[in-house]
Amino acid sequence: MLGGMQDWDLVVTNIIDHGAREHGTREHVTRWADGSETRTNWAQVRRDALKMTQALRAAGIRKGDRIATLAMNHSRHLVSWYGAVGVGGILHTVNPRLFEDQLEYIVNHAEDRVLLYDSAFAPLVEKMKPRWPTVERYVCYDAGPGGQGAGSEFEDWIGAYDGDTQWEKCDERDPCMLCYTSGTTGNPKGVLYEHRSTALHALAGLQPHAFNFDSRSVMLPVVPMFHAASWGLPWAGAMAGVKFVFSCVNDGQVLYDLMQREGVTHSAGVPTVWLAMFQHCDANGLPLPKLQLATIGGSAAPRFMIERLMKNGTQVAHAWGMTETSPIGTCGAPTWDWAQKSFDEQVDVVQMQGRPCFGVEIRTVDLGDMATELPRDGKSAGALQIRGPWVIKRYFKAEQDTVGDGQWFDTGDVGIIHPDGSLQLTDRTKDVIKSGGEWISSVELENAAVGHPAVAEAAAIGMPHPKWDERPVLFVVKKQGAEVSAEEILDHLRALVARWWLPDAVEFVDEIPHTATGKISKKDLRAKFADYVLEA
Amino acid sequence: MLGGMQDWDLVVTNIIDHGAREHGTREHVTRWADGSETRTNWAQVRRDALKMTQALRAAGIRKGDRIATLAMNHSRHLVSWYGAVGVGGILHTVNPRLFEDQLEYIVNHAEDRVLLYDSAFAPLVEKMKPRWPTVERYVCYDAGPGGQGAGSEFEDWIGAYDGDTQWEKCDERDPCMLCYTSGTTGNPKGVLYEHRSTALHALAGLQPHAFNFDSRSVMLPVVPMFHAASWGLPWAGAMAGVKFVFSCVNDGQVLYDLMQREGVTHSAGVPTVWLAMFQHCDANGLPLPKLQLATIGGSAAPRFMIERLMKNGTQVAHAWGMTETSPIGTCGAPTWDWAQKSFDEQVDVVQMQGRPCFGVEIRTVDLGDMATELPRDGKSAGALQIRGPWVIKRYFKAEQDTVGDGQWFDTGDVGIIHPDGSLQLTDRTKDVIKSGGEWISSVELENAAVGHPAVAEAAAIGMPHPKWDERPVLFVVKKQGAEVSAEEILDHLRALVARWWLPDAVEFVDEIPHTATGKISKKDLRAKFADYVLEA
Repeated sequence: MLGGMQDWDLVVTNIIDHGAREHGTREHVTRWADGSETRTNWAQVRRDALKMTQALRAAGIRKGDRIATLAMNHSRHLVSWYGAVGVGGILHTVNPRLFEDQLEYIVNHAEDRVLLYDSAFAPLVEKMKPRWPTVERYVCYDAGPGGQGAGSEFEDWIGAYDGDTQWEKCDERDPCMLCYTSGTTGNPKGVLYEHRSTALHALAGLQPHAFNFDSRSVMLPVVPMFHAASWGLPWAGAMAGVKFVFSCVNDGQVLYDLMQREGVTHSAGVPTVWLAMFQHCDANGLPLPKLQLATIGGSAAPRFMIERLMKNGTQVAHAWGMTETSPIGTCGAPTWDWAQKSFDEQVDVVQMQGRPCFGVEIRTVDLGDMATELPRDGKSAGALQIRGPWVIKRYFKAEQDTVGDGQWFDTGDVGIIHPDGSLQLTDRTKDVIKSGGEWISSVELENAAVGHPAVAEAAAIGMPHPKWDERPVLFVVKKQGAEVSAEEILDHLRALVARWWLPDAVEFVDEIPHTATGKISKKDLRAKFADYVLEA
Repeated sequence: MLGGMQDWDLVVTNIIDHGAREHGTREHVTRWADGSETRTNWAQVRRDALKMTQALRAAGIRKGDRIATLAMNHSRHLVSWYGAVGVGGILHTVNPRLFEDQLEYIVNHAEDRVLLYDSAFAPLVEKMKPRWPTVERYVCYDAGPGGQGAGSEFEDWIGAYDGDTQWEKCDERDPCMLCYTSGTTGNPKGVLYEHRSTALHALAGLQPHAFNFDSRSVMLPVVPMFHAASWGLPWAGAMAGVKFVFSCVNDGQVLYDLMQREGVTHSAGVPTVWLAMFQHCDANGLPLPKLQLATIGGSAAPRFMIERLMKNGTQVAHAWGMTETSPIGTCGAPTWDWAQKSFDEQVDVVQMQGRPCFGVEIRTVDLGDMATELPRDGKSAGALQIRGPWVIKRYFKAEQDTVGDGQWFDTGDVGIIHPDGSLQLTDRTKDVIKSGGEWISSVELENAAVGHPAVAEAAAIGMPHPKWDERPVLFVVKKQGAEVSAEEILDHLRALVARWWLPDAVEFVDEIPHTATGKISKKDLRAKFADYVLEA
């Protein structure tokens, strides 16, 4: 022993201890579905989490046990994150939008012992109870007699304790959280986050390149707490002493009023929330809320949305990631030469998916051999791979690692890396169309097709072809009352994509199948057209 | 094995890999002492560091060996940080301002095998060579025939290699850097930083609460690279892709020109650099450079300096720390209610030493028993203690840990913690004066005394007293040509401090002794007045 620094585990209970100690009086607001509001602060969240730890211990919950939540964003849900982890348990945030079969599978696979839920999901919970034999205890968050903000089963449950206890001692490589991916193939897979990965991810999230959090930040997280660890916000927020503004409903007026009244500076969510906000403001002649930073993920924000927000003085950042990456992979912070760029050039950068912050590393590899690394030249599209301290190694209960040599994780995305490090996503590896040894982006074909005024929705899939391996076929749903021919669609596409990308056929359909989370299900589309034959 | 995240060591070679990969073209500027300038970038710094790793290997340097630098801030020094660590070595940054006996002691104690130095220190190096028997190889950074920016012994040394090599593999708890504290008692003591502590400290440093770095930041670090790990800036800078502007000299005009020409947004250093900047701007009728953030540490910035910088649109942050704390302990970022505070209230906050960021934890304990934790009430002064992942556990080569129960490290500072978490330093534990069971701050007495127009410098020390244990005696150096009596000084103090704080005697002296780093040496002052007797 030559000397050295202190032993200090990166455990997430240290995060809430810090939040309560340094930012104890920093307030949070919850706007419940019934319109009632409650307020708490970081010191109270910690105290309540300690009470919940006592309640869980009394219920026989021990280190490593799984505690599930089925809930929207609110302060009691936040308390549960720290309370579940406080007892040494593994917080399992369940997505209530999943199909019942998936809900049955994941709760059983996780072997959840406790399940906390919103009264809005009570009918679902009642229906599922017989199919969830491992769950011993159900607690409702918000079924108070005086409305959702009033006393509740949850408040009564933890209210029986005084919070005078210690967190369960954990090692930094112990698991603390479990999220399932709603994969398009096979059963959902569980991603098991560790204390260390969670704490590092949250710490990295504070920097200006990512969420840019300090104790003045007021964050309204639209991204649900049941989705991809809510992008780590509940952890990062306690590190920086952020004020959280939670809403159990996401309609334009409610969010607008909260943003204005509570002085919201930061928001994070899917692009659709901004569509609703635009509609609300336009319909009522209101100015857009002046946020400092709108982080957008889940899917790409359209250009007009980015432009409108930026013109309103709001920095827009695309964040890209996956449940398997905790989830922050890349963030679209301004590049070093931002001030020298024109507005249009800035929007070009924001339209991409950003750059990795310290920790994660990305690369693209050849779509054919899935191994040869491609240059960062702004044009070579390849399979996107990622590695780093908050990237998955092995799925929950899996027999083997999901990563191979060099720990590279296959994201399933197809992307281009630009010379400045920016990632541009172009497709999914299972959807990209292989034609004559070259690759056609199904997403780009679809984006081009929906630009036609008569097209409501479009999906491009690769169909087997005797000469070219695969050729694209475009499935189109027409807008109600609109008429358009296949030839007119192809004419429209000719101006937008390379000639050899043009679909071999355009098929009109009444609807395109979707997944539980609203994405186009190409798997179902392929199954439906399994017997489709392309003419040579 | 239930599942889990990737194994990924927090090693500092990952930092420069990230910097080169994601911010490769981001430029650095060095302004050498002779006025010449050179430019490089993060990709080149990494390549040069790899070359240096090869040169060190060729010289027989192995993992754990110490590589010393005796140099100002410049890009070749930056290369050496990563090059020394790249070979698995321990970077030892030597402070050229130390006394020769101290320089002899620390280089021998560290057993440095290689020493890199600036030509400005060549006379010192020549003199010390016979006293540094462990050093096998000396390399001069900047003795090029065409001036300092031109080719040099260092460039020739690393230029013999191609950079085509791998970093030495290190564990995250391996040491990577060694800094000695120039303590006022006994021999200097070595603080041995580890890869993990260094990487966590740098990552925490990116957040808005600390250095607020992103890839647009342009940092002119005035804090020397030989002082307290340069506050971790060379590591944090590579994480965020900061542009560094280095200057080998710190006079007002040179720094002013660099700030204006290179678009400097961030600076970090002692308050005196801003005094020089004010003088330069005032003498030449120039506006102050418009930095975003001036981080000030080492000693407290006077109120007028804070006010002037803030009025110029520059955020001012006191940072407090020690070599033993890597060094960031607390940072003076705006509080959550900043916008509601008046300008004067904001300055009040900035005058304090700030709050800890996630990781470090501070407390104050009773000065008598050094154990009882004091309330965070904004008035109880106590001994400041700190712990966390980048705080020392044991000094280099020490036989035992320097921390006790709970890993609390005694900082030697006396402070008050306010209800909002802000730290206010009031004295050093060895200088605070114990009178009748109560504590008198020597620093506050001195600050009050130098407010008298005839006082050039003042030092208060506690003298043994038969009844009160100790009583303060104030030693005063008069301004040249000024006349003032002891009674006039006491009259001046009466309006500023509590009655029982008033010194029992005021002694006029020609000079007050100082340490090598320019601080008042109360140790020497006490020795000089060892026979002093207070009248009862």
